[in-house]
Amino acid sequence: MGAVMRKLKLSKAFTLMESGPVVLVTTNDGKKDNIMTISWTMVLDFTPAFALTTGEWNYSFAALRKNKECVIAIPTVDMLDKVVGIGTCSGTDTDKFSKFKLTPVQGKVVRSPLIKECLANIECRVIDIVKRHNIVVLAGVAAYVDTARKEKRTVHAVGDGTFIVDGRRIDRRKMMASKIPFGA
Amino acid sequence: MGAVMRKLKLSKAFTLMESGPVVLVTTNDGKKDNIMTISWTMVLDFTPAFALTTGEWNYSFAALRKNKECVIAIPTVDMLDKVVGIGTCSGTDTDKFSKFKLTPVQGKVVRSPLIKECLANIECRVIDIVKRHNIVVLAGVAAYVDTARKEKRTVHAVGDGTFIVDGRRIDRRKMMASKIPFGA
Repeated sequence: MGAVMRKLKLSKAFTLMESGPVVLVTTNDGKKDNIMTISWTMVLDFTPAFALTTGEWNYSFAALRKNKECVIAIPTVDMLDKVVGIGTCSGTDTDKFSKFKLTPVQGKVVRSPLIKECLANIECRVIDIVKRHNIVVLAGVAAYVDTARKEKRTVHAVGDGTFIVDGRRIDRRKMMASKIPFGA
Repeated sequence: MGAVMRKLKLSKAFTLMESGPVVLVTTNDGKKDNIMTISWTMVLDFTPAFALTTGEWNYSFAALRKNKECVIAIPTVDMLDKVVGIGTCSGTDTDKFSKFKLTPVQGKVVRSPLIKECLANIECRVIDIVKRHNIVVLAGVAAYVDTARKEKRTVHAVGDGTFIVDGRRIDRRKMMASKIPFGA
């Protein structure tokens, strides 16, 4: 089955990240693609801008710093074992796209690949690195959602080796109307 | 019913934040307590350290900058309407503890109060403010969990006025053993 990656308005891309799902971040160092699993992320702005925590200890960091771009790919609960597997091996000795049977797809703006199997993908440029706190600041430049996908539940790492799956959704759009930057 | 705030080891406090729940952040400006609702947070380190995004536009920011401390309080799904209410009014003209019937409790280290009704509380010092990105960097100095509380499900803001409640928990502690900084 082919994934249907539909463009998402950039002004809504922060809603892919705000709930705090575990994400995959792809990079390309000029020679090969790599993927890392990241749980430490934050929305910084609706524009959209994001922060993630990583540093020298991470093999992907060199590519982030050198090419100043990446893709944030958002996996769902059915992909959890791949997500954990990606987070517990290193791109130094592993072709993670091959090992975890994921499909790199060329985006529109950056060289780092989208991941076809993910629910959503956000192409990003690195706009700053706050070295003293290991914070990488990203600007989203294009976003996509696989609208044909049935499984939409993301997972949230607790940090102790357990993961919380998205449960039910509660609607407070009326109460929140003054705080939402786009017509809900 | 009295809440039982049990001290949590500081080395585990990041596990209260890593899944990305909506949190309440209390401050005290020297005259009065205030509370804000924050969804844009990130774990920065296991020590623990946290980042949150806020700035001049927020009434609590002056107290954060001046007194360099706060408490991160973690509410559960039964408190959602208070959480949204707190996020949609301002401390400039509202005593939020009174309006939302929440109980301030003196912590051990900082002057900003814990919130008795929350599942967990983390006393924090502001260790840096990265002005160009509106990032406030916090060091957790004491943490508490209400172990008597039945409702433990947190909520995750999507950013469009909807909220995702914690669903089931999946255990991958064996696969993750190499990545967990404390005995799981």
